[in-house]
Amino acid sequence: MSVYSLVIHGGAGTILKGEMTKELETNYHKGLENALDAGYAILEKEGSAVDAILAATISLENNILFNAGRGSVFGKDGSQEMDAAIMNGQNLMAGAVAAVKNVRNPVELAYTIMNKSQHVMLNGNGALEFAKMNKLRLEEDAYFYSEFRHNQWKQMQGNDETALDHNIIIKDKKFGTVGAAAVDIYGNVAAATSTGGMTNKQYGRVGDSPIIGAGTYANNKTCAISCTGHGEPFIRAVTAYDVSCLIEYKGLSLEEAMNVVVHDKLMKLEGEGGMIGVDTKGNAAMVFNSEGMYRGLRKSDGTKMVLIYK
Amino acid sequence: MSVYSLVIHGGAGTILKGEMTKELETNYHKGLENALDAGYAILEKEGSAVDAILAATISLENNILFNAGRGSVFGKDGSQEMDAAIMNGQNLMAGAVAAVKNVRNPVELAYTIMNKSQHVMLNGNGALEFAKMNKLRLEEDAYFYSEFRHNQWKQMQGNDETALDHNIIIKDKKFGTVGAAAVDIYGNVAAATSTGGMTNKQYGRVGDSPIIGAGTYANNKTCAISCTGHGEPFIRAVTAYDVSCLIEYKGLSLEEAMNVVVHDKLMKLEGEGGMIGVDTKGNAAMVFNSEGMYRGLRKSDGTKMVLIYK
Repeated sequence: MSVYSLVIHGGAGTILKGEMTKELETNYHKGLENALDAGYAILEKEGSAVDAILAATISLENNILFNAGRGSVFGKDGSQEMDAAIMNGQNLMAGAVAAVKNVRNPVELAYTIMNKSQHVMLNGNGALEFAKMNKLRLEEDAYFYSEFRHNQWKQMQGNDETALDHNIIIKDKKFGTVGAAAVDIYGNVAAATSTGGMTNKQYGRVGDSPIIGAGTYANNKTCAISCTGHGEPFIRAVTAYDVSCLIEYKGLSLEEAMNVVVHDKLMKLEGEGGMIGVDTKGNAAMVFNSEGMYRGLRKSDGTKMVLIYK
Repeated sequence: MSVYSLVIHGGAGTILKGEMTKELETNYHKGLENALDAGYAILEKEGSAVDAILAATISLENNILFNAGRGSVFGKDGSQEMDAAIMNGQNLMAGAVAAVKNVRNPVELAYTIMNKSQHVMLNGNGALEFAKMNKLRLEEDAYFYSEFRHNQWKQMQGNDETALDHNIIIKDKKFGTVGAAAVDIYGNVAAATSTGGMTNKQYGRVGDSPIIGAGTYANNKTCAISCTGHGEPFIRAVTAYDVSCLIEYKGLSLEEAMNVVVHDKLMKLEGEGGMIGVDTKGNAAMVFNSEGMYRGLRKSDGTKMVLIYK
């Protein structure tokens, strides 16, 4: 029987243990465990990698602690625009959405774009229109509101600063994103990523999350990858696809390739953050160059872990 | 003295000689020559690859024959949304814009994003706001209007068809994009791509042109690439960066790598179109799997050509 596995992240950055309360830490752990359970339950029943990562990512989007879906940060104009992407390694089909508002689960919209449109990437009001046409669940602004996100935004308003924060107690550089990668019992891989972007973001900035090849990539020949970090260097390094190329063209292992990209290539571009990935043999890895990364993995060999710090 | 070269394209697709008038063919040739001259004049004066591709792409954007800038096609709602990207191989800096309206030269906006913002990709109204802040030249809708584009759009309106057309006499599959790649006397490479997307496009569809790694990529270690074609397979194949990886990790030459991607990888995804590219040694190549590609190149060794058909 083949090995199957699921790995997830809830963002990376300067996560300082000293500034984390016990209660918040417990809640983060619980949120990551719930997402792992949601996805793993599907793999256990011989479900597909795509369904597993979709379920895990939706669980993280629905959790107000993470900067994606419900917990998305506020942009400069006080609105919440979200990005997401999904890719199926079996057929290289992909779906992505940028700068969409009021969609409860942007990753589900990316999934619907992948399966029900002729396109890969939709953006803005057009993406919302497509979501409505496909009867995806929408939410009023109030659903996405939380006091701590609003306070984060208020603190930055009036200046040109933007933050990649996903929670107020994290200082300095913080990258709020969620994502999942899985390999199923059939050896198919898939990955998804979702984000609310940067607090106080302006000018319609799009990060790496919805860019196929940068924040998200999956290919049955090699691996499935979801990234989290300072989006701009991740776009410039074509981060997720670079891991795949290092495996396919140079024969590196999943973890070797992830290490090259995260600790060498990204560092040269001052690209702080990390990534999670699986390969078709059931290997899973979580690599980051920041202080911490909310992350977890579960494999059919019994391995299970949820971690925050180094 | 190093070899320098410039290569450009004005879109690919089913370009049938029998349906082209002599006059139109002459105008296409003239448009491509003008763009080559604009860029090459900069390389000749020991200017940078970035400046050369910017000038060549602006020239193509200003020519109403090509689907980019002034000649952009109409979307479903009758408006003209444009995408563009630029990348500097010397420092891997990049700029991209998606779904922007009323900016005279989207590639200049991408260039300004690269040089004057902390971001790589801006979209929609936010991108327009950034253009205004940086005093880029805007144009009223009338500037972008031409009767033949409007007729193309009217023909498709009311149905759900979309076309990648860039001129009305081209039947079947036609991919309207412009782009340039250059290597300068210092061995620096750069690439840019610009497009008005698909006629009658809807739902805020974004193609490969503004996606760093897919439609546009440049790296002094390897090459600079600009693509044109059916955007979705190009995104799924991470086309431009794949050429770079085949050179960097497998040791292929520029042309070998372009052939693998265009004739093998893209064909497997039914990805019709092509690409142009240069490497740091001054080599230039133009490869496509469609009936034709508007294209031209000029090198410091005296080579100069402008071609349309196979």
